[in-house]
Amino acid sequence: MKILSLNEFEFSRRGQALVGQEMFKVLERARELEREGKEILHLELGNPRLRPPDVIIEETVRILQERDVGYTFSAGVPALRRAIAKHYSQKNDVSLSLEDVVISPANFIINQFLDIVCNRDDRVVFFTPAFPTYWAGASYIGLDVVSVELDKNIQYRLTKKNVDDAIAAKPKAILVNSANNPTGAVYDEEVLLYLAQQCENEKIWLLSDETYGEVVYEKDFFSLMTIKAPHVVVMSSFSKMFSIPGYRIGFAICDPIMVEKLSLSISTQISCLPAFTQYGCEKGLAEIDEYSKSVRRRFQIRTELCARLLESCKVLSCEVPDSGFYVFVDISKTGLKDVDFCQRLLEEKLTAVTPGSSFGPQYTDYIRIAACLDQEHIKQGVDRIKELAESLTSI
Amino acid sequence: MKILSLNEFEFSRRGQALVGQEMFKVLERARELEREGKEILHLELGNPRLRPPDVIIEETVRILQERDVGYTFSAGVPALRRAIAKHYSQKNDVSLSLEDVVISPANFIINQFLDIVCNRDDRVVFFTPAFPTYWAGASYIGLDVVSVELDKNIQYRLTKKNVDDAIAAKPKAILVNSANNPTGAVYDEEVLLYLAQQCENEKIWLLSDETYGEVVYEKDFFSLMTIKAPHVVVMSSFSKMFSIPGYRIGFAICDPIMVEKLSLSISTQISCLPAFTQYGCEKGLAEIDEYSKSVRRRFQIRTELCARLLESCKVLSCEVPDSGFYVFVDISKTGLKDVDFCQRLLEEKLTAVTPGSSFGPQYTDYIRIAACLDQEHIKQGVDRIKELAESLTSI
Repeated sequence: MKILSLNEFEFSRRGQALVGQEMFKVLERARELEREGKEILHLELGNPRLRPPDVIIEETVRILQERDVGYTFSAGVPALRRAIAKHYSQKNDVSLSLEDVVISPANFIINQFLDIVCNRDDRVVFFTPAFPTYWAGASYIGLDVVSVELDKNIQYRLTKKNVDDAIAAKPKAILVNSANNPTGAVYDEEVLLYLAQQCENEKIWLLSDETYGEVVYEKDFFSLMTIKAPHVVVMSSFSKMFSIPGYRIGFAICDPIMVEKLSLSISTQISCLPAFTQYGCEKGLAEIDEYSKSVRRRFQIRTELCARLLESCKVLSCEVPDSGFYVFVDISKTGLKDVDFCQRLLEEKLTAVTPGSSFGPQYTDYIRIAACLDQEHIKQGVDRIKELAESLTSI
Repeated sequence: MKILSLNEFEFSRRGQALVGQEMFKVLERARELEREGKEILHLELGNPRLRPPDVIIEETVRILQERDVGYTFSAGVPALRRAIAKHYSQKNDVSLSLEDVVISPANFIINQFLDIVCNRDDRVVFFTPAFPTYWAGASYIGLDVVSVELDKNIQYRLTKKNVDDAIAAKPKAILVNSANNPTGAVYDEEVLLYLAQQCENEKIWLLSDETYGEVVYEKDFFSLMTIKAPHVVVMSSFSKMFSIPGYRIGFAICDPIMVEKLSLSISTQISCLPAFTQYGCEKGLAEIDEYSKSVRRRFQIRTELCARLLESCKVLSCEVPDSGFYVFVDISKTGLKDVDFCQRLLEEKLTAVTPGSSFGPQYTDYIRIAACLDQEHIKQGVDRIKELAESLTSI
């Protein structure tokens, strides 16, 4: 058999759209440097690195030791669906039951939501800067993304004007993300309700990504679960909530018809998720309030430290976030674009951060710092970022 | 906010294509009956229910106890990729390395393979009867499936004539599954090589699903890994190999360019799989030969028992399989179609089996029995199937 080269075989349009992202190229290069023996400061991934609640690990281990390693329900194990419904019913003063909840990796919910409601070339709106997975999913499916830019001067909070602009674009779906990655902004109840209402009026699907909802420091967090409208899909993840991103367990709360669509999508593509990780998360829910309190406290200290240290640097600027793990930094005065800045930071200062353009093609004047290391290492990392930034402008 | 009904919002074509399958309706009804307190004999799912190798569980637990629950590589943990490459290099006398291997749930590989190489309306060929996930994936993506029927009179083995028919349909991709689910047929090396060669000549992608490759009883099993051609993607799963379907870990062996596409697809849609389950599988590989031997022996006894018991029934007929967990049974003489037969078997005899049409719309004269219970229960289940079949024709 003669061996042809692969480029004589055609990929689909989706297959062609799968190309490496800049964010991962940084990570890839960081790993290369590590293999060469260099020590890299990782300020790029939102990997919380806290000790997860012990009950989660213990329960997962217990189920594994019972050898419960068979197939389970595509929609998720009923005990976990019920526990999520109960927790959020109480928290948001709404009546949820098992039928309103589906278990899935959060990234997969984003992608499947887009695939289930949008055809190729359909339009979607992201409020930007926006989480890279939205861009990756839209690019893979072949969607027409309209970016509605949030105003930095009001700390990237969503406004009614932003909502009107989004609706005016006549999209099939809108993605909204409060508490926000990368800006840390938390949106007002009034504006979120206005968004949901306008979407309903115009028959637009709405995905509310509330992954960081449990990591809002001091402000009130408003969840769109509260309104229980059939066109609104609310999603979140245990990855950040319980510091277990490796579990790959998240969930959506939505109309039972959409729960069924998402379950069928899981059944078609993955069959189901492991039962043992789901039972672990179920046990964790009993401790969520206490655990989140410590996560919030820790990340508030870290992101504020990060922002305060950056303040003293004349060529960098950022907002103090209201939530989450991240600080979004304006590097425009350094004269370097994001990818070049990140590359030089990695090569010269052995520090990895995420290029701003991962959050939208127009954000080449920004980088995102993930404050997931301890204070000492964050301080060291920010010092290196400042050193590079200042060296660039002193020439 | 007035609440609109969900049917005023439009799903995409993919979203609309997500409808419940007959197979799952049987399962759903079986669960309902169980909630009513009835005891159901489960002969529908390929859930091996054997004790998995202890080292797999122990290693998974060890990694969990070390709290290694962060993100890991999209392509899979390098140690597992390397162990798979090593195992199959030795087994198939071929030179594989880490770069030729990507870790993913096996179902996800099937779906992502189809999505990466086919656009909507593109043609694919399945040799039928064929595994339900192929049909579900093709229906979700919107593919034109051409079914090339295998000949029951030669125990559903693949022939050069079948290959010629497949190629003549001018598809974008062909899926081939030896050892086969549901027929248990194992295809000849010569025909498989002919298929790979014809695909190369006509620039057709080929997915070789070798999930049951380690469960071939006595015949020689030929793997398409051996030829290492860029248009051939070979996949398998630890679910059946190690009796751990709940782990959701499988793998593909293919050209590094396809490995990268599949990794990017995982990175886009799921980020990564848990590290702890992957490390467990890595430890399992050291015991795979010994463990598979016992799996093979056990399932050969069970499927032969099943076939032998059916032989004595004049209105049912089946082939004795050469591999796997299943027996594919002709029920045409009962006068009932598959779905009706399965429903009555469930309601009247409390026994669940899979309707033949799950393996292709034309197989309404068949049911599939999964011989995953112990011999006593298989005997009981087959007795009930025979009772129903004979009662139908004695009227």
